[in-house]
Amino acid sequence: MVVGAGFGGLAAAKSLAGLPVDVTVIDSRNHHTFQPLLYQVATAGLDGDDICFPVRGVFAGQDNVRVRLGTVTDVDIERAALRLGDGSTLHYDDLVLAAGAVTNPFGIPGVEEHAYGLKSLRDALALRSHVLMRFETADTDPVHLTDGTLTVVVAGGGPTGVELAGGLIELSTMVLRHDYPGLDLRSARVVLVEAGDRLLPGFHPNLSAKARDTLENRGVEVMLNTAVSSVDATTVRLGDGSEIAAHTMVWTAGVRAHPLAETLGVELTKGARIVVGPDLSVPGYPRVHVVGDMAGATDSSGALLPQVAPVAMQSAEYVADKIRHRIHGESVQPFEYTDKGSMATIGRHDAVAQLPGGIRMSGVVGWFAWLLLHLVMLIGFRNRANVLVNWAWNYVTYDRASRIIPDVHHPEESS
Amino acid sequence: MVVGAGFGGLAAAKSLAGLPVDVTVIDSRNHHTFQPLLYQVATAGLDGDDICFPVRGVFAGQDNVRVRLGTVTDVDIERAALRLGDGSTLHYDDLVLAAGAVTNPFGIPGVEEHAYGLKSLRDALALRSHVLMRFETADTDPVHLTDGTLTVVVAGGGPTGVELAGGLIELSTMVLRHDYPGLDLRSARVVLVEAGDRLLPGFHPNLSAKARDTLENRGVEVMLNTAVSSVDATTVRLGDGSEIAAHTMVWTAGVRAHPLAETLGVELTKGARIVVGPDLSVPGYPRVHVVGDMAGATDSSGALLPQVAPVAMQSAEYVADKIRHRIHGESVQPFEYTDKGSMATIGRHDAVAQLPGGIRMSGVVGWFAWLLLHLVMLIGFRNRANVLVNWAWNYVTYDRASRIIPDVHHPEESS
Repeated sequence: MVVGAGFGGLAAAKSLAGLPVDVTVIDSRNHHTFQPLLYQVATAGLDGDDICFPVRGVFAGQDNVRVRLGTVTDVDIERAALRLGDGSTLHYDDLVLAAGAVTNPFGIPGVEEHAYGLKSLRDALALRSHVLMRFETADTDPVHLTDGTLTVVVAGGGPTGVELAGGLIELSTMVLRHDYPGLDLRSARVVLVEAGDRLLPGFHPNLSAKARDTLENRGVEVMLNTAVSSVDATTVRLGDGSEIAAHTMVWTAGVRAHPLAETLGVELTKGARIVVGPDLSVPGYPRVHVVGDMAGATDSSGALLPQVAPVAMQSAEYVADKIRHRIHGESVQPFEYTDKGSMATIGRHDAVAQLPGGIRMSGVVGWFAWLLLHLVMLIGFRNRANVLVNWAWNYVTYDRASRIIPDVHHPEESS
Repeated sequence: MVVGAGFGGLAAAKSLAGLPVDVTVIDSRNHHTFQPLLYQVATAGLDGDDICFPVRGVFAGQDNVRVRLGTVTDVDIERAALRLGDGSTLHYDDLVLAAGAVTNPFGIPGVEEHAYGLKSLRDALALRSHVLMRFETADTDPVHLTDGTLTVVVAGGGPTGVELAGGLIELSTMVLRHDYPGLDLRSARVVLVEAGDRLLPGFHPNLSAKARDTLENRGVEVMLNTAVSSVDATTVRLGDGSEIAAHTMVWTAGVRAHPLAETLGVELTKGARIVVGPDLSVPGYPRVHVVGDMAGATDSSGALLPQVAPVAMQSAEYVADKIRHRIHGESVQPFEYTDKGSMATIGRHDAVAQLPGGIRMSGVVGWFAWLLLHLVMLIGFRNRANVLVNWAWNYVTYDRASRIIPDVHHPEESS
């Protein structure tokens, strides 16, 4: 039983192909969301369907996988059972928990109610609609040019915050400029707020500085050593008591494990991740494994591993491999994460990347590396052709065709 | 002032290019919806963004057009003013009304509450989600194989009903078959109900018969001379008192003019269309014109023109031309509609088409003609490349990548 169809859940189920086990993948959505590109959906560079893939399609050719749409509300680890939102109960022999992470507002007043997250397709489309609607509002009355209508504050200087801030400034300076020729776009501010003393804290300081310079050259206002103290619909209040008039706030400053982790009743780490042993199993429950953002896996120094896609995929493959060995009566070594590097794109022709061995790239070289990596990652998923078409179009024309405000509502479950 | 960004509104504003007039295009959505392909979105063949185009993008190169997002709630024809949903008032010199048509449930009990329409992106995505969710439900418990969960009733045998029924049967027989290998898809019925004695009443009877044969060969149950008397969430009741257990009902059996037509206080035709003179102006108001589905324009025999895209575009071009002539102090001939033919696709390799001069096509020839026409129609809109990619992919693989259940909600207007 695999809970979650993110990078970890899909990798686990795929890696169990050919084994004499019946795999059920459960997710509350019928599609995998390619989270690294959500910021492109939010900034109208890609369509939602470009980065979402039907889970059933992913496993169409794998006989031992069954897909179940459902929301797991409880893990009853003593009874080896999952309870679902529809009241049903599913029993498992082996469990792989891969439900990922959710936005963590850290209890800061107003973030839960007023800030946008960027963890799901729903988040990205809601943010896109909101931003585009602010431009429509500003276009009707010049009073909105000075009241923060067009100002977006992005909290969090990690890769998501950097990529989103870069995408937002491109959206207004390169794209919306043509849509709203009468608007003074100097009022379309993008402010990136980071509590620490540099952007991209997981990267080499040179790349952090490079990212900051590039963003500032493009027009993003970067505020370091700055905490957010509260948020409402029109104002972001900072730690020093000052205020930014901003009708849009995006919170990328922290995540916590999916709340499902708390239902196990086992020990959790900082960020509500489940404490696991060196083989990624829950202590005392050798057939319950946790992978990806939900797992409190550590490196050799005891530090928690980063909550990124490569960790999720490697840990999932490890667990599948462990199950394979167990079937053959063999044992495995403890899990070890191989860091293959990190990258973050800042915008057209600009990205930063660091690879093992101290190799660092930035500018246009880093950008092409980023493009290539994401296309390779999308291979196996069907929508890569569309992504390529959209990217090529955006590149050549400076256009973003996806800037429609989706006229849709949440699927009704009336029957 | 042009109200509506459908085929009529866009054609009117485009045709006014280069004239010494200030054009404002008002629509309640920020995008044009290419309605003829909505059924493909509903049946997961295309993404919503493939057939929706930002209105501002359409007019980016046309200096005399201004775009305004807003809902016109009233036309005060005496004061030459439009009232908008946000309380503001706009005055016009010339008015082109092109707000289109809405689904007409004809007062049949339950249609308004329980039937899906197919007039907007929202309709199409809601229908797609609903149908896919029925398959998910049926996959959890075999009881749903016999209670109508997977049965879709399409009411209305016009082009929309025929195309949708064909798309739905393909979706289950060619696509979802792979997604739900354990489901007995004989329970996935598609029933097409038409009150008249043949499908496609606007076509030659040979093509009507051909469409029926093709649909039936593909598995659609066609019921002619059959009226719907009431609908609820799980049952469709027919005129003869019999019932069909069906958890999905789509209503394509009729439209009426947009309710805005009623606010003018002028004479309306059957279907609530505005009575217009031979020059498409409202009698007594020579500077108020109505085009497209909202106009009660007639042909030389006095019959109302069909509510289709070619009529909307030709009538809009006529009105723009009339304004151009007026500026030059000239007059114009009455509007005359040139019928360039009709076509409806039934599915892979099958369409019916009739052209002027009695030319009729069906089967694979008609299908390629249909494909070509729709690609040509999409030219000028940017998303044609994506549509081509999606269609080519669907054609080669029998796949439909868009079968994600959108995890989105209606844009909040909280601020």
